[in-house]
Amino acid sequence: MPIKVEKYIYEDIADKLANQITKGVYKVGEQIPSVRKLSQDLGISTKTVEQSYIFLEGLGLIEAKPQKGYYVRNITSKILCEPEKPEIEISANSYSGEELVGEFVKSAKIPDAVLLGLAVPSNEILPGKKLNQILARICKDSDTKGIGYEFPPGNYDLRQQIAKRSIEWKESLSPDDMIITNGTTEGLMLALQSVAKSGDCIITESPTSFGILQVIDNLGMKTIEIPTHPRSGIDITVLRSALNSHKVGAAILCPNISNPLGSIMPDESKIELYKMFLKKEIPIIEDDVYGELYFSSAKPKSVKAYDEKGIVIYCSSFSKTIAPGYRIGWMYPGRYFKKANKLKIFTSYASATLPQMAIAEFLRTGGYDRSLRELRKKYESQTSIISRYVSEYFPEDTKLSKPQGGFFLWIELPRKVSSLELQKLALKKKITIAPGPLFSTHINYLNYIRLSCGFPLTPEIKDAIRTLGLLCKSLM
Amino acid sequence: MPIKVEKYIYEDIADKLANQITKGVYKVGEQIPSVRKLSQDLGISTKTVEQSYIFLEGLGLIEAKPQKGYYVRNITSKILCEPEKPEIEISANSYSGEELVGEFVKSAKIPDAVLLGLAVPSNEILPGKKLNQILARICKDSDTKGIGYEFPPGNYDLRQQIAKRSIEWKESLSPDDMIITNGTTEGLMLALQSVAKSGDCIITESPTSFGILQVIDNLGMKTIEIPTHPRSGIDITVLRSALNSHKVGAAILCPNISNPLGSIMPDESKIELYKMFLKKEIPIIEDDVYGELYFSSAKPKSVKAYDEKGIVIYCSSFSKTIAPGYRIGWMYPGRYFKKANKLKIFTSYASATLPQMAIAEFLRTGGYDRSLRELRKKYESQTSIISRYVSEYFPEDTKLSKPQGGFFLWIELPRKVSSLELQKLALKKKITIAPGPLFSTHINYLNYIRLSCGFPLTPEIKDAIRTLGLLCKSLM
Repeated sequence: MPIKVEKYIYEDIADKLANQITKGVYKVGEQIPSVRKLSQDLGISTKTVEQSYIFLEGLGLIEAKPQKGYYVRNITSKILCEPEKPEIEISANSYSGEELVGEFVKSAKIPDAVLLGLAVPSNEILPGKKLNQILARICKDSDTKGIGYEFPPGNYDLRQQIAKRSIEWKESLSPDDMIITNGTTEGLMLALQSVAKSGDCIITESPTSFGILQVIDNLGMKTIEIPTHPRSGIDITVLRSALNSHKVGAAILCPNISNPLGSIMPDESKIELYKMFLKKEIPIIEDDVYGELYFSSAKPKSVKAYDEKGIVIYCSSFSKTIAPGYRIGWMYPGRYFKKANKLKIFTSYASATLPQMAIAEFLRTGGYDRSLRELRKKYESQTSIISRYVSEYFPEDTKLSKPQGGFFLWIELPRKVSSLELQKLALKKKITIAPGPLFSTHINYLNYIRLSCGFPLTPEIKDAIRTLGLLCKSLM
Repeated sequence: MPIKVEKYIYEDIADKLANQITKGVYKVGEQIPSVRKLSQDLGISTKTVEQSYIFLEGLGLIEAKPQKGYYVRNITSKILCEPEKPEIEISANSYSGEELVGEFVKSAKIPDAVLLGLAVPSNEILPGKKLNQILARICKDSDTKGIGYEFPPGNYDLRQQIAKRSIEWKESLSPDDMIITNGTTEGLMLALQSVAKSGDCIITESPTSFGILQVIDNLGMKTIEIPTHPRSGIDITVLRSALNSHKVGAAILCPNISNPLGSIMPDESKIELYKMFLKKEIPIIEDDVYGELYFSSAKPKSVKAYDEKGIVIYCSSFSKTIAPGYRIGWMYPGRYFKKANKLKIFTSYASATLPQMAIAEFLRTGGYDRSLRELRKKYESQTSIISRYVSEYFPEDTKLSKPQGGFFLWIELPRKVSSLELQKLALKKKITIAPGPLFSTHINYLNYIRLSCGFPLTPEIKDAIRTLGLLCKSLM
């Protein structure tokens, strides 16, 4: 199918150029290579290069100047401020966003919508096809091998491959310290059940993912939200005073690339955080599901890396990096291993066998690292370009996060704009967004939204951001 | 690979003959067809037929008489009584068998052991190979289709295929009433969490599966066991008085083919049970995981079939009939649908996508029904033949269940024989069994064991039963 290959090449070139433009390799106003030159350099047809350029023009990244060539376009001259650390009262609350979440998840199923709401990466971006090929091979070769139970803590090969990746932990974590889970969701639930009970207070970042807020609520526990800076993470000072003023059962935190902020805590804050909790013997549940999607040059250290006493329960998964539908996550429960492993058995007995085998093979052959490198670049350039669209099309005093990784933008709209109203209007235009109130147990973030940048850029996404900007202005 | 095919044919013939012998098609002392005749009738080599006969001889089912041919052997002249309905005090208890279960599960991993302990069917018996082929095809064809989340309540095709099988429910149950779960274990846990809370009393059969007892215990609930007859199920009279004397949150029952008994409640008892619970508005959680493995001519009705008011939460899975490692079960939560679906999201977000697609296809193409017919025959003949071995080799006053389906035997040993001692001695001989105390929250069933007949018969199994018999005698 030559057309498909050709299509793949033009998209690939467009991707690479978009990345170079957002990284500033080509500056605003600078000319990019001529179609002829690039086609010669890369040894591909001029038609393919032209296709890439037309696509980038559609995204508004370059413009053609007659008789001259293609130039990097100035999408916007505006630079939006970052939202500030929120001011919230420190109190133990229940989550009341359940109905909002229900409506929100329903909206994910609208056909042909532009999906800027759900925290789901696009299948086109993930290495799912490669993984399906591996799984097909395993199924064909394995005869009946994947048929039986894979008793907890789970497939040894997979645990070994994951443990091998934990170099930041100086090989102190072994496959035997790990339990395979049904995604991070199950991991977080098992972790909470292992260390806390109904009625306990659980500390979270604010804003934080409604998945975390729901898991806490579902177990009959209360949430204490701590103000979190969109770049540097949770406020350590407020956290300390909350630990002193409240009886806290545990914390669920995303020190690296929080959802929705994309913040990363500096290492010294992580150490301080760890010491604070160790002193009080309060367990930290570390949600690192976005931890591999950093935009910097190296993986940020996790709090677990400092955990000499086993009070950190580390949870992650392959749902944002390989295939959400495979439902494979893992946890390092530290000193709570025995309890968590027992709970895993009562909760789902085991995780599916074949998906574990396939992911183990993908990790073993190095496919995962290759695809992660691609994925980080894609998420970074998508997030960066959508940021530019937001700067261009949203009202003047909008504030915008500068995520350190992942694929979310956290946007503070002018105070008058209700994100719930905006969500309704956007849905009518077949655009889904995540309104701010989803991310808190307080009546909070009314004028905030989260945009998900997990889908490959298209002119439709550009148009959707413009539409959202217009809708915002209509609500002011 | 002609050798493999040849092997398959001889096993197949042996299976069929064993089934006919246990069904009484060929009576004790009767001659079975000569090797030459059967080879002509079936159009296969005499060598293959001979192999089958030698195999059956090894199982002790037939014997060769020189110059005459093969005759059905009288394995045993003893007929053991059934165990009686147990006498138990009606009280709310916690489960203390946790450590026993831990040791028991560990014993499942001993290499080369004869596995008569775990409730796990052999991969050789299940249609896993066919399923793996389907999954391989889906992976190859689907490109990236199975990569994404399959949001609860789960894959529609699969739910439709399962709903289609529910003819006993007069089409009153639709795919929309169903939630796909990670096996029955998750289903039972979601069901319990949907209707009861920590501290509540939950009614079960006695004896009952330790999986059920652990799920109840894990959620901080108490168990009230009701004496259950090894053939006709739970004692309705005692159940009624327990409902009157205790505040009951729910019941988890296996009205069809209970584990470990293999009992089936008569339909009139099911109706009485249902009315009793409806009157008090107490939910029934119906575990039907063995429901398809009946030995009679038709599937026994489930209590859910009578449930006009939605108080029954029906749970089942494909773990005992297709592939435990696929981790696919389902539940019909009745009036608790909304709660259960929400809990499913918080517990594991979704079940793995590709296994759902593969099983849906297996059901759609009729492969499931064909394989179920085979499976029932196999389980019935294995259970029947192992029953005969037990009758032959175990002490005189042993009592033995006559299961109505499934692949378990529940054995009451002479009072002096400690099943825990027997378990230890058997392990030294590389034989695993399930000791009685696992199946109760009382200090009970000390001289009972469960034997699992989920593995294809071999002379080693016959020898293992003989060894167990000798060990029993040594403990008297």
